[in-house]
Amino acid sequence: MFSQFDTDMMSRAIDLAKRGVYTTAPNPNVGCVITQGDDIVGEGFHFRAGEPHAEVFALRAAGEKANGAIAYVTLEPCSHFGRTPPCADALIAANVSRVVCAMVDPNPNVAGRGIQRLRDAGIQVDVGLLQPQAEALNPGFIKVMKTGMPYVQLKLAASLDGRTALANGKSQWITGPEARADVQVFRAKAGAVLSTSQTVLDDNPSLNVRWEQFPLDVQADYDIKTLRQPIRVILDTDAKVKIDAQLFSLDGEVLLVTATPQAVSLGDDVEVIQVNRQGNGLDLSATLRALASKGINHIWVEAGATLAGSLLNADLVDELIVYQAPKLMGQDARALANFGGLTAMEQVPSFDLTDVCQIGNDVRLRMKKQ
Amino acid sequence: MFSQFDTDMMSRAIDLAKRGVYTTAPNPNVGCVITQGDDIVGEGFHFRAGEPHAEVFALRAAGEKANGAIAYVTLEPCSHFGRTPPCADALIAANVSRVVCAMVDPNPNVAGRGIQRLRDAGIQVDVGLLQPQAEALNPGFIKVMKTGMPYVQLKLAASLDGRTALANGKSQWITGPEARADVQVFRAKAGAVLSTSQTVLDDNPSLNVRWEQFPLDVQADYDIKTLRQPIRVILDTDAKVKIDAQLFSLDGEVLLVTATPQAVSLGDDVEVIQVNRQGNGLDLSATLRALASKGINHIWVEAGATLAGSLLNADLVDELIVYQAPKLMGQDARALANFGGLTAMEQVPSFDLTDVCQIGNDVRLRMKKQ
Ligand SMILES: [Zn+2]
Ligand SMILES: [Zn+2]
Repeated sequence: MFSQFDTDMMSRAIDLAKRGVYTTAPNPNVGCVITQGDDIVGEGFHFRAGEPHAEVFALRAAGEKANGAIAYVTLEPCSHFGRTPPCADALIAANVSRVVCAMVDPNPNVAGRGIQRLRDAGIQVDVGLLQPQAEALNPGFIKVMKTGMPYVQLKLAASLDGRTALANGKSQWITGPEARADVQVFRAKAGAVLSTSQTVLDDNPSLNVRWEQFPLDVQADYDIKTLRQPIRVILDTDAKVKIDAQLFSLDGEVLLVTATPQAVSLGDDVEVIQVNRQGNGLDLSATLRALASKGINHIWVEAGATLAGSLLNADLVDELIVYQAPKLMGQDARALANFGGLTAMEQVPSFDLTDVCQIGNDVRLRMKKQ
Repeated sequence: MFSQFDTDMMSRAIDLAKRGVYTTAPNPNVGCVITQGDDIVGEGFHFRAGEPHAEVFALRAAGEKANGAIAYVTLEPCSHFGRTPPCADALIAANVSRVVCAMVDPNPNVAGRGIQRLRDAGIQVDVGLLQPQAEALNPGFIKVMKTGMPYVQLKLAASLDGRTALANGKSQWITGPEARADVQVFRAKAGAVLSTSQTVLDDNPSLNVRWEQFPLDVQADYDIKTLRQPIRVILDTDAKVKIDAQLFSLDGEVLLVTATPQAVSLGDDVEVIQVNRQGNGLDLSATLRALASKGINHIWVEAGATLAGSLLNADLVDELIVYQAPKLMGQDARALANFGGLTAMEQVPSFDLTDVCQIGNDVRLRMKKQ
């Protein structure tokens, strides 16, 4: 069904899609390539919500040459009127002869409709080319569409023996500046950066994206003028955060999740979501579902050992990103996640290692839920 | 002083030296290449203690063509009568015109004597080409020669949160079979595998090298007929190990280190070394010094958290090799090293990360003392 040329063009469409990785949230990353014979006649990718979809940019570039062309798209073309008209209609109007999609729309309620619309118009549609690579572009979008829950990345930073602070609490800069720059890149890709009131009260962090801290290659790819600040989400069960916390004074949205909205006094600029208590904190599953319903598909969690332990205990972590410093802090030092009480190895949360690399003098491990 | 050809030839000599990495202990790994013009006319490496040195093999291969040739050697040629006659004399007798050494002999009492002998015979000697790479061939040999202390590699295997067993002691197979195969390679390269009576009593390990567990590439490089078993060293302060322990029934030497030699009843095949007590165990520094004086240059430590903590506390670890499984065992699980009480980040043992890689579904980190 697919030739080497098809594969090369879809691979190019996937590379194009990646150029929106910092900016499209809450929309998915999508890329499109249009070809006539052996020639690429149009290319495009989705850059930002509210702006045209990948297919529209590619069709504009192709102009008359779209007539009889092949369109390679990393996601099934949309068939509904959203903020922009449906791309399936645009492809039909341009009279392309064939559409190759890497994957169908992950939303079960609309999956296949765009493809059907194209086929009804007499266009050949082939689906499934480089699907795993296309799926990897949008883990959050796909998970929310399929399950209503966002994709959760939990960041941990610890010594080699899994510690985050000495027994007396001393901890500053366990990992090096290169690891901290890498964290900025993950923040920039996420729909939201999530933390807790405890972290805000302890560290008064900004939790925003600082372009000047990006590694140079990211700075080169990501124009500072288009910088998107992920929504900052603070879990604040008992409404302890005060408006003088640094994060409220910076660019970008803040969302407070609390069990006691009546106790919040942060002014009108801070959106508040109420979620029920569970144990000593919030119902984390309900919290994540509420965030997904607000358009947050992909959450980067940077918090302390309590939230890390609770998320792991509740099996709500899709991906672990662990920065490890080649240090040993000792058996009385503080653990990276507050959970325990396991009595058999079968109960141990286990992950599939997907990537390991050296960053400065630290190590970064990426792991996915098994 | 050195041409690209010189560098290429020394690089080749270093590769040759590595072919002895499993077998030369307690001797160093040495390689030699002899050239006439642009041609290699002889090559050799030291394979096993008691057998000829690298230079002798290379000179034999070169025969008459050694006359006027250049000899590239990874270590200063020896000038003393050991189990074989001095290589410096052999090079002089063969009438080579120039000798290039990567490094001088690390033993300060003989350093430079081989070079002097060659120069006295009118041979040009150039020293220092690819010295760091040549030094990396023999960290144990060099450290013993310079300090009287062996090179100590401490192996740890733990979960991502630095744990080796659940609170109830359950722990079997934290890391996967690929990591365990990798451990066999490190054991095979070491002069000795060191463990404790506690580990022997708890796990009844073999602590030997099992050729059939090597990765396939190592099996291809290392003929089973030449398998060398590292000396197994057991620290047994109070002479608790019994002769029915598995390790005594297997091929290879066992050395028992104890504070109470009079209490040992293991028969004549087991050599016993007496070392004084220090704290709850043995004087580890004295233990290592005693092992070096027995010709053990390079020690691979596989033991429990108590010895790991004591070695780290005493700053006796040259290299840490940590196998990490992508699992989290919880904050009440057992720590990988029993040490603690640190109150400032400056006290934290820190290492330089030299290598990180994925092995199966686990990660291996290598770190050197800073
Ligand atoms: Zn569209
Ligand atoms: Zn020699």
